[in-house]
Amino acid sequence: MNYNEEALKMHEAFKGKIEIKSKVRLENRDDLSTAYTPGVAEPCRKIHENTEDVYRYTAKGNLVAVLSDGSAVLGLGNIGAEAAIPVMEGKAVLFKSFAGVDAFPICVKSQDIEEIINTAVNIAPVFGGINLEDIQAPKCFEIEERLKKILDIPVFHDDQHGTAIVVSAALINALKLTKKNMEEVKIVLNGPGAAGTAIIKMLISLGAKNIVACDSKGIVVEGRDGGLNAHKTELSKITNSQKLKGTLKDAMVGADVFIGVSAPNSVTEEMVKNMNSDSIIFAMANPTPEIMPDIAKKAGARVVGTGRSDFPNQINNVLAFPGVFRGALDCRAKQITEEMKKAAAYAIANLVTDEQLAEDFIIPGPFNNRVAMAVAAAVAEAWEKESK
Amino acid sequence: MNYNEEALKMHEAFKGKIEIKSKVRLENRDDLSTAYTPGVAEPCRKIHENTEDVYRYTAKGNLVAVLSDGSAVLGLGNIGAEAAIPVMEGKAVLFKSFAGVDAFPICVKSQDIEEIINTAVNIAPVFGGINLEDIQAPKCFEIEERLKKILDIPVFHDDQHGTAIVVSAALINALKLTKKNMEEVKIVLNGPGAAGTAIIKMLISLGAKNIVACDSKGIVVEGRDGGLNAHKTELSKITNSQKLKGTLKDAMVGADVFIGVSAPNSVTEEMVKNMNSDSIIFAMANPTPEIMPDIAKKAGARVVGTGRSDFPNQINNVLAFPGVFRGALDCRAKQITEEMKKAAAYAIANLVTDEQLAEDFIIPGPFNNRVAMAVAAAVAEAWEKESK
Repeated sequence: MNYNEEALKMHEAFKGKIEIKSKVRLENRDDLSTAYTPGVAEPCRKIHENTEDVYRYTAKGNLVAVLSDGSAVLGLGNIGAEAAIPVMEGKAVLFKSFAGVDAFPICVKSQDIEEIINTAVNIAPVFGGINLEDIQAPKCFEIEERLKKILDIPVFHDDQHGTAIVVSAALINALKLTKKNMEEVKIVLNGPGAAGTAIIKMLISLGAKNIVACDSKGIVVEGRDGGLNAHKTELSKITNSQKLKGTLKDAMVGADVFIGVSAPNSVTEEMVKNMNSDSIIFAMANPTPEIMPDIAKKAGARVVGTGRSDFPNQINNVLAFPGVFRGALDCRAKQITEEMKKAAAYAIANLVTDEQLAEDFIIPGPFNNRVAMAVAAAVAEAWEKESK
Repeated sequence: MNYNEEALKMHEAFKGKIEIKSKVRLENRDDLSTAYTPGVAEPCRKIHENTEDVYRYTAKGNLVAVLSDGSAVLGLGNIGAEAAIPVMEGKAVLFKSFAGVDAFPICVKSQDIEEIINTAVNIAPVFGGINLEDIQAPKCFEIEERLKKILDIPVFHDDQHGTAIVVSAALINALKLTKKNMEEVKIVLNGPGAAGTAIIKMLISLGAKNIVACDSKGIVVEGRDGGLNAHKTELSKITNSQKLKGTLKDAMVGADVFIGVSAPNSVTEEMVKNMNSDSIIFAMANPTPEIMPDIAKKAGARVVGTGRSDFPNQINNVLAFPGVFRGALDCRAKQITEEMKKAAAYAIANLVTDEQLAEDFIIPGPFNNRVAMAVAAAVAEAWEKESK
C-alpha cells in the first residue's frame, strides 16, 4: 500500500480529518433558548461566580489543545504552522479514537518562544489540557517548563514524555525477558534531542545508573572538543559517570541496551556485535531505523524494537498520550508528574503477561483497546496518591 | 418553560455543547498509516510547497474561530473568558446547525488589545475565518480593523455586522410595507455602541440620509455639553445633519423609525405618539425591550420588532452570521465587504414574499432553512462580482 498516495487522496476527499459536532439538539425555539439566549446566560453566571464551574458547564474538562509551531514536524523539520496541520489533526483523531478525548489543533504562526507561550496562555480557558507537539529543541524545554508554572491545567510535550513513557515500558519488559536490571545495565542513547533527553531522564528516575548519550559528534562528555552547549552540559552531568570519550562505536562496546532516536542506518552490525549478550536495540529513527531488525538480530541482538508498524515491537506514542490525558482529565490533575508518567509506563508494560512476553512481544500493539484504559486508570491513581 | 433552569441542566448533563469528531475511520494499521504516520507526511509536504493547499488537505476551509475576551457578553457585561465559554460554544452550535460551518470557541484570557490581536493572528493558520464576539466597544472596532488588515481570511465582528445586516433586512421590508423610502425617512437610533454604530453605517450605505443617534446623554451632536469622545465625534459627522440638540424624546418627534440597541423601557408611549404615522419600532434591548410591543402598537406604531422569540418580527443575528460565513468560506473570500453585507441583508429581506409581507411578518423566522442558503449564495456572488 502506498501510504503517501492514499493519505493524499483521503485528506483531499474528507477535507481534513476533524469536524466540530454539536452535542445538543437544535430544532426549535426552546432548543435555541437553552443552547443560546436567553438560557445560556445562566451557566455563564454560574461560572462567573465560581470559575471551577467551567468544568461543569462547558466542554473544557474533555478538551485538549494540540499545540505546535510546526518547527520540528515528524521527519520533515521546520515546515511551519500551516504544513503542520495534518499532523495535529491526525493527533486529534488519535486522541478521540483511542481515549474519547476531544482534541483541537492550535498551529501557532509565530515561532518565537514568548509568542508561543502567550498564545498558549491566552487560549487556555477553553482547554482542560495542552499537548505540545513537534516544537524544536531546545525551545520546547523552556516552553513546557514555563507553561507548567503559569497554567493550572496539564501541559505535556508528547515528543518528550510520550516517547519516554513508551520506551520505558518497552525497556521494562525487555529487561524482564533478558533477566537484567535497570540499575545495572549499560544504556547507550543516540540522539539526545527532545525525545532522547526525556528518555534519559525518565530511565534515570526508573533507576538506570549507567547511561551514555551520543550525538553526531560522539559521546557527550564534559570537556569535549568544541565544548558543550547548555543543554548538553546538563546532560553530561546526569549521564556517563565514567567519563567515556569517543564515538558511538566506542560507547556501544559492552552496552546492554541501545536506544536510537537519531538517524537512519547510524548503527552497524559490528557495533551490535560489540554489545553484551542478550542485547536490546530500540532503533526508532523513522521511517528507516538506525539498524534494520534482521541485521541487528543476525549480529546478536535478542530484542529489537522500532517505530514501525511493519516490524514487531512497535514503540509508538499512541500507547501513551491518549490514556495519559484521559487519566489526567478524569481526575482533573493540575499537571502530569513524574510519578504519573512512571505509572503509565508500568501500566503499558504490565499489559504484556509473563506468558505472552517474548522477543517479538515486549509491548502491546496500538490497537489493543485495554491500553488507554489501563494507562488512564494508573495515571489518575498516581495523581490522587500524590495530591493527597 | 424556565430557560435558565433548563439550560443549566442541559449544560451539565452534556458537559458543554461541542465535541471534536473524527471524519476518518481508525480501525487498523492501514488507517493509522494514512491518518497519521507515515502517510500524513505527504499532505504536510504539499502544503509546505504551496501554502494554499492547506485548504485542500485540512479542515481550514470550513473552520471558523468564535473569538471573544468575554468583556461584553450578552447582557452580562465583562464576565471574562471562562464565563463566556457557554455563549461561544452556543455560537459554534448555531454555526454548525444552521450552515454546516465548523466553529470552535477561542476565549482569550487577556483583555488587552495587543494580546487579543496577537492571539488571533497566531491561531489563524488552522481557521478559514474569525468571528469576533462579545468584545467591548470601542476596542472591538480597533481589533476588527487591524485584524482585517493583517489576516487574509474573513474577520467579522458579529455584534456589529451581524446585527446591522438583520436590522437592515427588517427595515428594508418594513419600509416596503409602509411605502416609505430609506433616503427620506428620519431614523432615531438609541445606543450607538458596537451594534448601534454598525447599524448606522450600514443604513447610510443603504441610502439613509437622516439618522439621529442618541446615547444616555441625549442626542449625539457636535459641541454637546461635556464634549464627545473620538467615537462619538466620528458619529456626529455622519449623522444628525440638522444638528438637532436635546433628549431622546426630542429626537423622536417626527421620526419614522426607532431602532433601540439600548436599555429596557427607555422609550415611552408618548415618544411613540410623537413619531410620524406608520412608524417602525425595533426595540432590541434584551430580554426587556425599550418598549413592549403591545404598548408601542397602542401608541400608534405600525411595525414593531424585538430581539425576542416570543413576539413577532424577531430580529435575530442567527439569520445572518451562519450564511455569511458559509458564503465567505465557499468562495474563499479574503474578507467580508460592505457589498457582501448588503447582499446578505437583501437576501434575508427577499425571503419574505410580497404576499407574506405584513405588520407581523417582515422577516423570516430563525428556523426557516432557506435563510442560510440564500444568504450564503448572495454573499458569495457579491464577493465574486467585487473580486473580478
